[in-house]
Amino acid sequence: MSHPLDQALHLERAGADRCRGATHPGYANMVGPYGGITAAVMLQAALTHPVRLGVPLSLTVNYAAPVADGAFDIEARPLRTNRSTQHWWLLLTQNGEVAASATALFGVRRPTWSAGEAAPPADVPPAVEVASSRAGGFLPPWVSRYDMRVVRGALPSVFDETEQPDSQTTLWVRDEPPRPWDFAALAAVIDCFVPRVYLRRRRRTPAGTVTMTVDFHADEAWLREQGDRPVLGTARALAFRDGFFDQAAEIWSDDGRLLASSLQLVYFKG
Amino acid sequence: MSHPLDQALHLERAGADRCRGATHPGYANMVGPYGGITAAVMLQAALTHPVRLGVPLSLTVNYAAPVADGAFDIEARPLRTNRSTQHWWLLLTQNGEVAASATALFGVRRPTWSAGEAAPPADVPPAVEVASSRAGGFLPPWVSRYDMRVVRGALPSVFDETEQPDSQTTLWVRDEPPRPWDFAALAAVIDCFVPRVYLRRRRRTPAGTVTMTVDFHADEAWLREQGDRPVLGTARALAFRDGFFDQAAEIWSDDGRLLASSLQLVYFKG
Repeated sequence: MSHPLDQALHLERAGADRCRGATHPGYANMVGPYGGITAAVMLQAALTHPVRLGVPLSLTVNYAAPVADGAFDIEARPLRTNRSTQHWWLLLTQNGEVAASATALFGVRRPTWSAGEAAPPADVPPAVEVASSRAGGFLPPWVSRYDMRVVRGALPSVFDETEQPDSQTTLWVRDEPPRPWDFAALAAVIDCFVPRVYLRRRRRTPAGTVTMTVDFHADEAWLREQGDRPVLGTARALAFRDGFFDQAAEIWSDDGRLLASSLQLVYFKG
Repeated sequence: MSHPLDQALHLERAGADRCRGATHPGYANMVGPYGGITAAVMLQAALTHPVRLGVPLSLTVNYAAPVADGAFDIEARPLRTNRSTQHWWLLLTQNGEVAASATALFGVRRPTWSAGEAAPPADVPPAVEVASSRAGGFLPPWVSRYDMRVVRGALPSVFDETEQPDSQTTLWVRDEPPRPWDFAALAAVIDCFVPRVYLRRRRRTPAGTVTMTVDFHADEAWLREQGDRPVLGTARALAFRDGFFDQAAEIWSDDGRLLASSLQLVYFKG
């Protein structure tokens, strides 16, 4: 049996710039699939394209409509290929209707001066010392595809509508069962944070990501070094405003290197 | 005489989803136009489209190649229109070659619980108390399209290659001459920060934005309230890694409201 993530990422090529996939029940969310898996499978369409150049540097996915259970088509079209960068246009459709659009930037990295600047979350115990969150019965299937160990900012156990000062979450996370990290897995996991409004307001409200951008700092060597061990994720809202809030999230290696950063905009009802 | 920004944003409609514009010498950068003006004019193509719904919520622009001086075509196609959101696909071409691609999300905002979470930069004197940076002779024309008052993290006056602990910049900025803020102006200004690597390394190196995402928290009321007064911008790098670094930037109103946030990935040579 292959890993659930590999099953969900499976694509059949159906033409030069076209391939076909299907939703995976294990990654189902409240309505349609988990946004991270949609991001991952769209990235995968470019990653597996025969003319692909280099590695992913950035991905933006726009969630236009819920993806229905079942088959979907992805168009992955290289818009422009330069000497060391390649720009992609991606469209996920079902019965000819657009469910998600995306752009991706790939590139060939060359060794340069490199340095971190943002700092990883402080005072974080090793993953083995943090209890794994057990998914409650009311959580959607995709939550069980991850082993999450929340250091700070867990999903509230009581939604008592007492406003909290912030919505920051820090957690250790890996695929469940463990799977070596790759770009698609990184694109998927960075969407794993529950809506910040749940934490900030301790209130349940319909909420869903409408657009997400992921910048990758990891290359293949860093991913290899991370193996299948948990990565450290952190997320916080910047502002909540008339139906939308944005979330800045980061994924760090277990030795403190920034693997990916993201900014997403999330719809919420109230 | 209209404002230089309005001149640069001027588009002639050339079909249902097509319009035509031209580069403006006042917004020229080292190679091709200032990235912010390209973002603004692509957003403008959706803003002025007859079927546009609501206001901009998010914009991602991918800079695929330098835009040559002269005319360009923009295709602005609504991919999907829902009850309260609309997804756009945008392509800027010259002689049929892709120079930039973009996606945009528009939406109708509805009043909900709203709150800030990120804090504006601390210890910032009012704009009138900060000296306006005078553009040196070696700076490209677009810099003179802004009145910038740097509170912290100015372009180094000496590039002595002494590494600095961080690359944070905080500045007051407005269009020069003053112009009331709108969405296009906001999309343009959020790209106004010089490459973070100049600050961090005090080293000049070829550098250019390859992709930029902007999330808008401002609506028309907030923009109206901001008038043409300076906004407060802040930017910092998260990580520099083998040819690319990413920059998180924010634009704040002068009374401390987050107007827009962004994440961009920047190529640098070394």
